[in-house]
Amino acid sequence: MAGYTLYDFLPSGNGYKVRLLLKLLGVEYRLVEMDILKGETRKPEFLAKNPNGRIPLLELETGECLAESGAILNYLAEGTSFLPQDRLARAQVLQWMFFEQYSHEPFVAVARFIHEFEPKDSPRWLEVPTLHEKGKAALGVMEDRLSTASFLVTDGPTIADIALYAYSHVADEGGFDLSSFPGIRRWFQRIESLPGYAPLTHP
Amino acid sequence: MAGYTLYDFLPSGNGYKVRLLLKLLGVEYRLVEMDILKGETRKPEFLAKNPNGRIPLLELETGECLAESGAILNYLAEGTSFLPQDRLARAQVLQWMFFEQYSHEPFVAVARFIHEFEPKDSPRWLEVPTLHEKGKAALGVMEDRLSTASFLVTDGPTIADIALYAYSHVADEGGFDLSSFPGIRRWFQRIESLPGYAPLTHP
Repeated sequence: MAGYTLYDFLPSGNGYKVRLLLKLLGVEYRLVEMDILKGETRKPEFLAKNPNGRIPLLELETGECLAESGAILNYLAEGTSFLPQDRLARAQVLQWMFFEQYSHEPFVAVARFIHEFEPKDSPRWLEVPTLHEKGKAALGVMEDRLSTASFLVTDGPTIADIALYAYSHVADEGGFDLSSFPGIRRWFQRIESLPGYAPLTHP
Repeated sequence: MAGYTLYDFLPSGNGYKVRLLLKLLGVEYRLVEMDILKGETRKPEFLAKNPNGRIPLLELETGECLAESGAILNYLAEGTSFLPQDRLARAQVLQWMFFEQYSHEPFVAVARFIHEFEPKDSPRWLEVPTLHEKGKAALGVMEDRLSTASFLVTDGPTIADIALYAYSHVADEGGFDLSSFPGIRRWFQRIESLPGYAPLTHP
């Protein structure tokens, strides 16, 4: 037990990235569930740990806190097969992870959030066609790679795959049709067959 | 001359992050200007280098290409004082860089883009109040740190500072008032006094 405490909201794909890596690495951790829908991450106690008021947040045994799923994944993966040693490969891992946060998550994840949590008469449903257009473009960039490669960066899974898998594999919950992305669907199966794999809402 | 070619659009803050680091490191490079307003990054020749169709893009001497400003910064800074060796400090650098792309740039940079490039009758001006609200929250998270620290992560400048400086120092061009962020303004001065510093549209 490395003494990690993870502050998280189980339906969150950003949180799932961290939980999935911990499971794949076989690392135990203490989970503190935060209900973001009830504003629990905007309370002073939590803002003292993360001034940006977001989950996931990893608290180390020393009490130091690390925010941002991408930063947490890099921290936890250091020295494991999920983060290559080669300088260019490491940068390519980050390329996919920044792509995910900027060009993928704001569309693929937000479409899912609206489908899951917004009432049918919410004006946010007006955003969905644009979210689908931009989300499909991001999925197309992934398909371009995964139509010929087993994983995004190297021959094996890295934290780039974990970061992109989290919201891609539940894109259908946001109204995306993945039938025209066969490379992505084969890649889902590769990730889901890894030892230690656990599904999204697994604690 | 390391043989780097940078595909970039000079008014872009994302591109500026890379140009500024190259200047601070004293690394020469070849610049290929791409006019994103004319769709030059959506043409087949460029999409072959970056399927996501965005600048900045760094081409190595080997012909390999690296996209995403955050990934390029990490690649170029490896082994320099701009990227610490310590595992937690490296992750904290990434924390700020992911924060920038997810919680800062989509508001602070987009407000500036609308002010600079959208006609006065464009419906995109309706987005500005929300962009200002969310952008101010991001600037508040930075101020929280910079009110007591010289730089975001360590005692000296890292690529986290470069990444956040790029759009923060021109936030006023997007209608943000920085008078209530004195820590951020002192930090601007520290960065602007670094040897090799060059302003935003510098090639």
